[in-house]
Amino acid sequence: MPTPGAAAIPSDADWLDAAARLAMRGRPSSRPNPAVGAIIVRDGVIVGRGWTRPGGRPHAEAAALQQAGSAVRGADVFVTLEPCAHRSERGPACAELLADAAPARVIVGCGDPDPRTAGKGIARLRAAGIGVQLLDHTPSRDSLAGYLVQRRLGRPHVTLKLALSLDGRIALPDGSSRWITGEMARAHVHSRRALADAILVGGGTWRDDAPALDVRLSGLEDRSPRRLVLTRGEAPKGAQAISTPQDIADLKDTQYLYIEGGAGTAAAFLAADLVDRLDIYRAPILIGSGRPAIEDIGLGALDEAHGRWALVENCRLGSDGFEAYRRLREG
Amino acid sequence: MPTPGAAAIPSDADWLDAAARLAMRGRPSSRPNPAVGAIIVRDGVIVGRGWTRPGGRPHAEAAALQQAGSAVRGADVFVTLEPCAHRSERGPACAELLADAAPARVIVGCGDPDPRTAGKGIARLRAAGIGVQLLDHTPSRDSLAGYLVQRRLGRPHVTLKLALSLDGRIALPDGSSRWITGEMARAHVHSRRALADAILVGGGTWRDDAPALDVRLSGLEDRSPRRLVLTRGEAPKGAQAISTPQDIADLKDTQYLYIEGGAGTAAAFLAADLVDRLDIYRAPILIGSGRPAIEDIGLGALDEAHGRWALVENCRLGSDGFEAYRRLREG
Repeated sequence: MPTPGAAAIPSDADWLDAAARLAMRGRPSSRPNPAVGAIIVRDGVIVGRGWTRPGGRPHAEAAALQQAGSAVRGADVFVTLEPCAHRSERGPACAELLADAAPARVIVGCGDPDPRTAGKGIARLRAAGIGVQLLDHTPSRDSLAGYLVQRRLGRPHVTLKLALSLDGRIALPDGSSRWITGEMARAHVHSRRALADAILVGGGTWRDDAPALDVRLSGLEDRSPRRLVLTRGEAPKGAQAISTPQDIADLKDTQYLYIEGGAGTAAAFLAADLVDRLDIYRAPILIGSGRPAIEDIGLGALDEAHGRWALVENCRLGSDGFEAYRRLREG
Repeated sequence: MPTPGAAAIPSDADWLDAAARLAMRGRPSSRPNPAVGAIIVRDGVIVGRGWTRPGGRPHAEAAALQQAGSAVRGADVFVTLEPCAHRSERGPACAELLADAAPARVIVGCGDPDPRTAGKGIARLRAAGIGVQLLDHTPSRDSLAGYLVQRRLGRPHVTLKLALSLDGRIALPDGSSRWITGEMARAHVHSRRALADAILVGGGTWRDDAPALDVRLSGLEDRSPRRLVLTRGEAPKGAQAISTPQDIADLKDTQYLYIEGGAGTAAAFLAADLVDRLDIYRAPILIGSGRPAIEDIGLGALDEAHGRWALVENCRLGSDGFEAYRRLREG
């Protein structure tokens, strides 16, 4: 037990946790690049911090190195993703910058699956005599989910949002759904929209509810993502149409897709196993007969439903509950 | 801030909290009496503890006084319910026993609505020169919910249990529901059954699922409550029939009724506003099309659904979530 009042010495994982939180500042504006976070620590003091800037440059490491200046020599560099090994026309490789800066150690939260870097970034650092540790650090991986899903599965990371009564209804039988959840939960939804590259709803929801799908939070009004509609018909004004869930593979520059319903759209993405995260807002109300959250997903037996979702967030938002679940996948 | 390592001095409310927890030992075997808890404290040390014994005797105060012996003189007595003022053929009134024992103070968590005692118990103690404090102590009231609801509303306290998927389903379309929740949640259900005087299911659930409705926990096998079925037809073997939710007013010696479904029975009790508590077990699975938890409850507009339920418990049971809600009522 640490002495009360005395600060515990942060571990490498603690510093990486902080770097992963810092990385969120780059989301989603870093696109097409991953949102990376970097922290440089010397004698227990932070001497440089960086995160990927809008459009992808500067990289997190470059920003942190510039802030640290000569203090980086002999320091520890914590970075959520393996430093890039490929020089581009937009600037030198971060692995080169780090090799020149000569820190004592570089601690990496997650290897980069990009074939231009994979393993080469770390090899370049080691060749320069720098101690490198590659951790399998879950918060780093989570902060890079959109990038990693694009690399591995060739599509955006998909979050399905549901706003439910305790008994799983999203509306009365006549469709009225304003409001199930309270103001705090609705503001939270807006904050999540601001972290997405695109929002998608079904054609019926677009027609019936005319949702604004924008970010109505002070200071974040310009963070409204672009809008998609799942429809076999024409794209409505102000939105792009896709005709099947699988078409999300064609979305350019989209790491994070946020789906807001309705029940048919939710079911279509779930049945295609194209949902990576559930964001569930639950109001302390009962509705009884009403509209279900999710239509048929083709479930054959209860056994098939188990083992797919793990709780990753759980909090109260006013009188509503919020739970987030991550899709468990192999590898 | 208390010094780390130093025990904080318990407040009167802290001691009453402990008495309310102790009272749970009397539930439900104390029937027809309320399950009361009593703790006697002298110079910060517990010198007597008691809770209502099976069948209602001895009362909590009598048991605690017997344990404390002469140490009660000048001590503090914490009791969840106002001590009874009426001598019965089963023994003297607790207010008399306490007056004779001469503690310095009696701290009461909740007044007794029984007209034979209401206010008279406290008056008797004050007449004996004992300092009495009547607190409005929520844990005491909660521990007496079955007794208070019977006194105020003339019926048992009703808990509706629901075991749901994240999207509010209780079964697949074919009715299969084994299992939605995991072993820990199911054991928790058995522990809740052991606290009930009676369990009720609908006639369809009784026929289709043939539920055992017993307590299958080691050491608690003899705590299985009696079984009720909501049906217009004949009582099935091993159960008592009631034909409408309102008929629970006729149940003798029933402070706590535990309802386990199905969706029609849940809706009937909710539509009649005869549910005081929701116990919701939620598994991390999605079902999509399937059987809803609750049929039509006659809700006209979303506004009517709000402001009725307050979260009172919230924990994880293995990979499942458990939430309990209390019905908010006037007065």
